[in-house]
Amino acid sequence: MAKTNPGNFFEDFKVGQVLAHATPRTVTVGDIALYTSLFPTRFCLQSSDEVARAHGYTQAPIDDLLTFHIVFGKTVPDISLNAVANLGYADCRFKAPVFPGDTLSSRSKVIGLKENSNGKTGVVYVRSTGTNQRDEVVLDYVRWVMVRKRDEAARAPEADVPSLPDAVPAAQLHGPQGTDFSRFDFELSGSPHKWGDYAPGEKIDHVDGVTVEEAEHMMATRLYQNTAKVHFNQFAAAEGRFGRRLIYGGHVISMARALSFNGLGNGVLVAAINGGAHVAPLFAGETIFAWSEILDTAPLGDRDDLGALRVRTLATKDRPCGDFPGKADKGYDEGVILDLDYWLLMPR
Amino acid sequence: MAKTNPGNFFEDFKVGQVLAHATPRTVTVGDIALYTSLFPTRFCLQSSDEVARAHGYTQAPIDDLLTFHIVFGKTVPDISLNAVANLGYADCRFKAPVFPGDTLSSRSKVIGLKENSNGKTGVVYVRSTGTNQRDEVVLDYVRWVMVRKRDEAARAPEADVPSLPDAVPAAQLHGPQGTDFSRFDFELSGSPHKWGDYAPGEKIDHVDGVTVEEAEHMMATRLYQNTAKVHFNQFAAAEGRFGRRLIYGGHVISMARALSFNGLGNGVLVAAINGGAHVAPLFAGETIFAWSEILDTAPLGDRDDLGALRVRTLATKDRPCGDFPGKADKGYDEGVILDLDYWLLMPR
Amino acid sequence: MAKTNPGNFFEDFKVGQVLAHATPRTVTVGDIALYTSLFPTRFCLQSSDEVARAHGYTQAPIDDLLTFHIVFGKTVPDISLNAVANLGYADCRFKAPVFPGDTLSSRSKVIGLKENSNGKTGVVYVRSTGTNQRDEVVLDYVRWVMVRKRDEAARAPEADVPSLPDAVPAAQLHGPQGTDFSRFDFELSGSPHKWGDYAPGEKIDHVDGVTVEEAEHMMATRLYQNTAKVHFNQFAAAEGRFGRRLIYGGHVISMARALSFNGLGNGVLVAAINGGAHVAPLFAGETIFAWSEILDTAPLGDRDDLGALRVRTLATKDRPCGDFPGKADKGYDEGVILDLDYWLLMPR
Repeated sequence: MAKTNPGNFFEDFKVGQVLAHATPRTVTVGDIALYTSLFPTRFCLQSSDEVARAHGYTQAPIDDLLTFHIVFGKTVPDISLNAVANLGYADCRFKAPVFPGDTLSSRSKVIGLKENSNGKTGVVYVRSTGTNQRDEVVLDYVRWVMVRKRDEAARAPEADVPSLPDAVPAAQLHGPQGTDFSRFDFELSGSPHKWGDYAPGEKIDHVDGVTVEEAEHMMATRLYQNTAKVHFNQFAAAEGRFGRRLIYGGHVISMARALSFNGLGNGVLVAAINGGAHVAPLFAGETIFAWSEILDTAPLGDRDDLGALRVRTLATKDRPCGDFPGKADKGYDEGVILDLDYWLLMPR
Repeated sequence: MAKTNPGNFFEDFKVGQVLAHATPRTVTVGDIALYTSLFPTRFCLQSSDEVARAHGYTQAPIDDLLTFHIVFGKTVPDISLNAVANLGYADCRFKAPVFPGDTLSSRSKVIGLKENSNGKTGVVYVRSTGTNQRDEVVLDYVRWVMVRKRDEAARAPEADVPSLPDAVPAAQLHGPQGTDFSRFDFELSGSPHKWGDYAPGEKIDHVDGVTVEEAEHMMATRLYQNTAKVHFNQFAAAEGRFGRRLIYGGHVISMARALSFNGLGNGVLVAAINGGAHVAPLFAGETIFAWSEILDTAPLGDRDDLGALRVRTLATKDRPCGDFPGKADKGYDEGVILDLDYWLLMPR
Repeated sequence: MAKTNPGNFFEDFKVGQVLAHATPRTVTVGDIALYTSLFPTRFCLQSSDEVARAHGYTQAPIDDLLTFHIVFGKTVPDISLNAVANLGYADCRFKAPVFPGDTLSSRSKVIGLKENSNGKTGVVYVRSTGTNQRDEVVLDYVRWVMVRKRDEAARAPEADVPSLPDAVPAAQLHGPQGTDFSRFDFELSGSPHKWGDYAPGEKIDHVDGVTVEEAEHMMATRLYQNTAKVHFNQFAAAEGRFGRRLIYGGHVISMARALSFNGLGNGVLVAAINGGAHVAPLFAGETIFAWSEILDTAPLGDRDDLGALRVRTLATKDRPCGDFPGKADKGYDEGVILDLDYWLLMPR
């Protein structure tokens, strides 16, 4: 098997190591169409070149989460091919818009390692960076993932766990350079609610439910060139723990974000992801619902056309969210599959 | 639930009211690729930039029905979120071609209202108009839909039912400005049959059948940003009348149109839809067939390169159309799901 | 049924006859996005405009097999609508890259005919040629297919079986004009292995498995405007030999090629297909695996930046390929569905 990629095992990672990931990928309007067909997203800035131009863009930027998935997908063959679990995200910042025609690349730096006490696995912390063809950073985030050891007898490195922020500080959030949302059209956007209409503690049930099919999640995950085996191979999955293909956790994030349009319709940009947990797996045939809580609101220091909302969005499966299911005594309420904490930018 | 869109109920509509719908949407070659992958369409004008240029276009226009679905989809959150049934279409005219890069918007004017005798629902008549980024009308049609009342005790407005034409008069049909089909290639188009080869009363079985999958109809319907709940949520549908997700009626229209290529291969443009009825619902796993009858033929007043065919296309499910199933004593023959009356333009 | 296409039957073909196929089709980035979402392909040359430009292209070319499928799809209504079986391919050469915006057309010349002894069917040999809008040949191949007779009593033509090469000679392979792979980046490509690292006799298990869904294969096959009935109509298939829709054999070829990235990641171009057999049918829900054997290696006569690898790739269903299943005493080992012999070009 010398020529196939076995992926990296826990003992292959060293703190400070930088991995340049394959494959550079040019994003196109084709990707946007597929994303639109897979997720019920309707944010006006990403839907219309005319709306984007009216706010200072040259054309409609792609959905921030599409950028995230493409950048993330490239890290899989090097970081998480032998992963047991994707444990968390932190300090994720969307730094520049991505447009059709841009070519995205990813690299990751190992920033922490900690062997688990069972000696079979360890946690790898990486900071992954997505860049465009001008080597401008478009996205930067930390994730940590539990990776198998190749050889259980291999010596563990000294534990080195990075200090990570609970949230991206509001003072570090910025609107995209050169844009101006002061004449935002709250009628054509599909929601009359401005930034100032939201208050911390407010809860919003996004109401709608969407069932996910096998073809859909596989097409989405391949679109990002994410090759994690568990999403695609029913022959192997039939023998596994669930007997089913696991749906990429990012599919749930995108679906929850799209559903959140109904209640957060003017949250046109994701500025940062503070953290996120995939609480339970999703399988084809199950129906995703979502609700959100406003955790915080913050003006942007350098402009008054946009404000920031810190939002916590929870997604469930086969459970409507009218009663706002969330954390319970032990873990989470039945049906919760995602708990995501992020900053939105919304016109004021 | 203050920030989510509850949709309009019957008593929210007033005759004369104009609704500007969200979300403006830029159409791209990505949308065309998805449409091509979802419907077996092969009309040469929409398939090839070279063919389109040879007939006076700058590039291939998008399928007329793709325009219809995108314009229609935008009306759903305002018009039919609380609809019980989509009752009919009339006076639908395709007025200008749409090209990749164009941004489509929709608005609707309420042109009629009539409460049903049960006091629970009413019929809303709207004229919906699709425009491009130059505010040119690309599509204009009337539909009427049965909408629930929020409050059954609410006073009904006086019944005001618009007078609608049975069909768009042939004299009002026009070919696209600046085009010339006089040198149409009847070999590369895939059909040797010209406008003059068709005669009123002629029936054509389109022969082929296509089975529809859940992933397909949901992807199509999302592509149009049509958010009608009944198409996407199996969790809720399981408790409903059918126990299944309903397939968007427009999916059947597009499939029937695509199947009609086999027999009407040179009907490259839909000029108008005179009327249409969704006779029965379609569900995933069922197979669509179609047949057509030529109702009328008409020359175009202002040009002799194109002629108009008034066509009635019926679609069935799980029933081949060799025996031309249609209207029966009570309603329709078993298996009929669509009865559509429209004008095609075909090179002479 | 006069206006529907009945397809050609065996007695309709004459040696020397040329058929110009409908429908010219403009290829776009939308097609690329769909192809990427349907097959787990990650070859850097087709993924990134930047990579393509660094090697002398104006932009990323489309996947060679996407060209093949589009050119092939056009031949179906004229050549194989009444086919019983697709018997083989030979002498298939990829002659020029195809880019988004190019319009592809197909024509076929009948080069051989041989009635079967049962008098019911015959074998039709065609050389099919794909051209772009400048009438440059982009693809040229021979296939032979067993076609039904319309009338079993019809007189058979004299048998005329063309002589076909077992393989395209290495001396006739060329890299694309104007390109230069001498500075290929073996890190960003996702594989460190160069042409010189492969040796005849080497076997590579591509490890990964991908399950195929009904929606996926139908969307792919429609994308190519391939109308072969057996792929789409479950109502008819339920009564047929398998009770299921058959998956287009080309879907297996594309999946095997995409899986081969894991082991042949720098085989960025398919130069030729020497031959191929669809050993057994694939159905939705089954999982494809693949392995390859290096049959030969050859330098290119006119350049030293690329070398050619003659590869035999076998695909299986529901059978991992660690034991390299292939030809057995009688036919093939259980689970083998494809045996493909082709030339790859790989940077040296």
